[in-house]
Amino acid sequence: MLFNDLYTIRAEGQRVWILDQTRLPFARQELMLSNLADAAHAIASMQVRGAPLIGATAAYGVALAMLAGVSDADLEQALAVLAATRPTAVNLHWALGRMGQRLQPLPPSERLAAAWQEAEIIAQEDKTANSRLGEFGLDIVQEIHARTGRPVQIMTHCNAGWLATVAWGTALAPVYKAWVAGIPVHVWVSETRPRNQGLLTAWELAQAGVSHTLMADNSAGHVMSSGQVDVIFVGADRVAANGDAANKVGTSLKAYAARHFGVPFYVVAPESTVDRQCLSGRDIPIEERSGDEVRRILGLAGDGVAAVDIVPLSTAVTNPAFDVTPAAFITGIITENGIWRP
Amino acid sequence: MLFNDLYTIRAEGQRVWILDQTRLPFARQELMLSNLADAAHAIASMQVRGAPLIGATAAYGVALAMLAGVSDADLEQALAVLAATRPTAVNLHWALGRMGQRLQPLPPSERLAAAWQEAEIIAQEDKTANSRLGEFGLDIVQEIHARTGRPVQIMTHCNAGWLATVAWGTALAPVYKAWVAGIPVHVWVSETRPRNQGLLTAWELAQAGVSHTLMADNSAGHVMSSGQVDVIFVGADRVAANGDAANKVGTSLKAYAARHFGVPFYVVAPESTVDRQCLSGRDIPIEERSGDEVRRILGLAGDGVAAVDIVPLSTAVTNPAFDVTPAAFITGIITENGIWRP
Repeated sequence: MLFNDLYTIRAEGQRVWILDQTRLPFARQELMLSNLADAAHAIASMQVRGAPLIGATAAYGVALAMLAGVSDADLEQALAVLAATRPTAVNLHWALGRMGQRLQPLPPSERLAAAWQEAEIIAQEDKTANSRLGEFGLDIVQEIHARTGRPVQIMTHCNAGWLATVAWGTALAPVYKAWVAGIPVHVWVSETRPRNQGLLTAWELAQAGVSHTLMADNSAGHVMSSGQVDVIFVGADRVAANGDAANKVGTSLKAYAARHFGVPFYVVAPESTVDRQCLSGRDIPIEERSGDEVRRILGLAGDGVAAVDIVPLSTAVTNPAFDVTPAAFITGIITENGIWRP
Repeated sequence: MLFNDLYTIRAEGQRVWILDQTRLPFARQELMLSNLADAAHAIASMQVRGAPLIGATAAYGVALAMLAGVSDADLEQALAVLAATRPTAVNLHWALGRMGQRLQPLPPSERLAAAWQEAEIIAQEDKTANSRLGEFGLDIVQEIHARTGRPVQIMTHCNAGWLATVAWGTALAPVYKAWVAGIPVHVWVSETRPRNQGLLTAWELAQAGVSHTLMADNSAGHVMSSGQVDVIFVGADRVAANGDAANKVGTSLKAYAARHFGVPFYVVAPESTVDRQCLSGRDIPIEERSGDEVRRILGLAGDGVAAVDIVPLSTAVTNPAFDVTPAAFITGIITENGIWRP
């Protein structure tokens, strides 16, 4: 039953279905996108998240727009509306550029079919890349299982699973590949304060039926010290040319502890994440986000989602979104092209 | 104005006042203890927390009991009632044993005055020990300030301040000593999931007027990487003979990162925390606490304190209360007798 219904986006009969990620992990709700406005809203309001998924949604958004009109003006408007949803999202603009290049030279009568086809290809490429990097990670999991003969204990951080991509995920792709291959795995999930994306990881693993244990981020050292972790897989937002990797804040703390305990630490990310222009981690700017993300926590209370303030809103807070794990602490960087050991 | 009103317990006219720590950090409420039952309830319900403070409250509880009766039977009953409040708290039983030894040999008519006096001495001894270890820590802070000429940036973990003791605290004693000495300091406070005792640290620093910034535990590596931390002071629950130190879970993650960034890492704790019978950290049992501490978070909502569930209560959780920082990652252990470099 794995991967039945584990989708973040899918096209069906000239409609597009997405999982509304603003409701997760507290409620599962599927949304139907019928037109350009729906697609633009889904991206702008972060009902879809994760670079490849945003790109795929934009591509499908162009296809939905073609249902209403296929003239040059219709196409230009669709591209402009979608581009304005998240101006700095690189993958969004890459996908829109590709749709424009494919559709502009065509006679208008051919654009509708071509748009659906190209959007499907863009989505499929993400699935394929993640499937391939998952296979490289699977080799590592298989080797551990062959050596120990027991369920492979995997630690991760944040959410880099199928929810953050079109399918498979990145850091969690080896987990799902192992599950499909019948290798028993167990995942240690840290909540990933302040935004608690680890709860998305716990949710998506539960949906897939993969054994997992949630813990406070602080527990990572103790769990490693008791010999309960065989390997760590994390995602990356950006990898520098020297192998330094920026990922969700707290990733580096796991890497420093992993070194002490001799636990292999892998970054799993598509090749497009590697920025060769960026020489080292020092060149990666770290976004400082609103302190309210630390001060205020969302959860379930009674039947609804509620917020509580853990400190007065006047409390000074720092909230860096990412940190840099030095290449020296990374065992390998797994992409769809293989494993790079910086 | 520092340390005006910064008390966790004080005797005044045969009454004892405590700060109700079950209400913190969301409300400040002082409670008057008038009799044995009040004192027993304060300990059992954790209105007071921290080993030395529990011991002092028990000692004052004996004094309060003597107001109602000073016979041998009265004394025995008081000791028994207080001992039953938290059966495993070492400092509680130590304080009660000392009160018994002091009062039992006396004629009943002298017991009331002697009880108040002995309780005051027990409380005073904690203040004195913390003041002394604070002075040793102050030397380190002064040296940094003399070298850098700017406010000294101190990181801590959990709550080991005046709230956790009778006065001064342990890890935060150097901070308050520096503040009193006019050395500018700034404290990086991590929230300390899952129980968020870092919020107590933020609260008590705010009460004292000491500059501080709250952050998610995950942010420690990034904050150190940007050169914003001069020294780390943490408390300890138990220190082994080889210098391995057990403290609130997450402490070790800061130590591993501190090593990478060359930040000095000190454990600050009274000599009584050092357990010479315990050869290494491997011999320190780590308490596994209820997963609900991870699943459920308390905060302010509207005018009151409310709880939200961040995951379904069925989610598997691990919740170790402590972790062990290896001696090799500890720059020094500061006690009231000096600085020990294991």
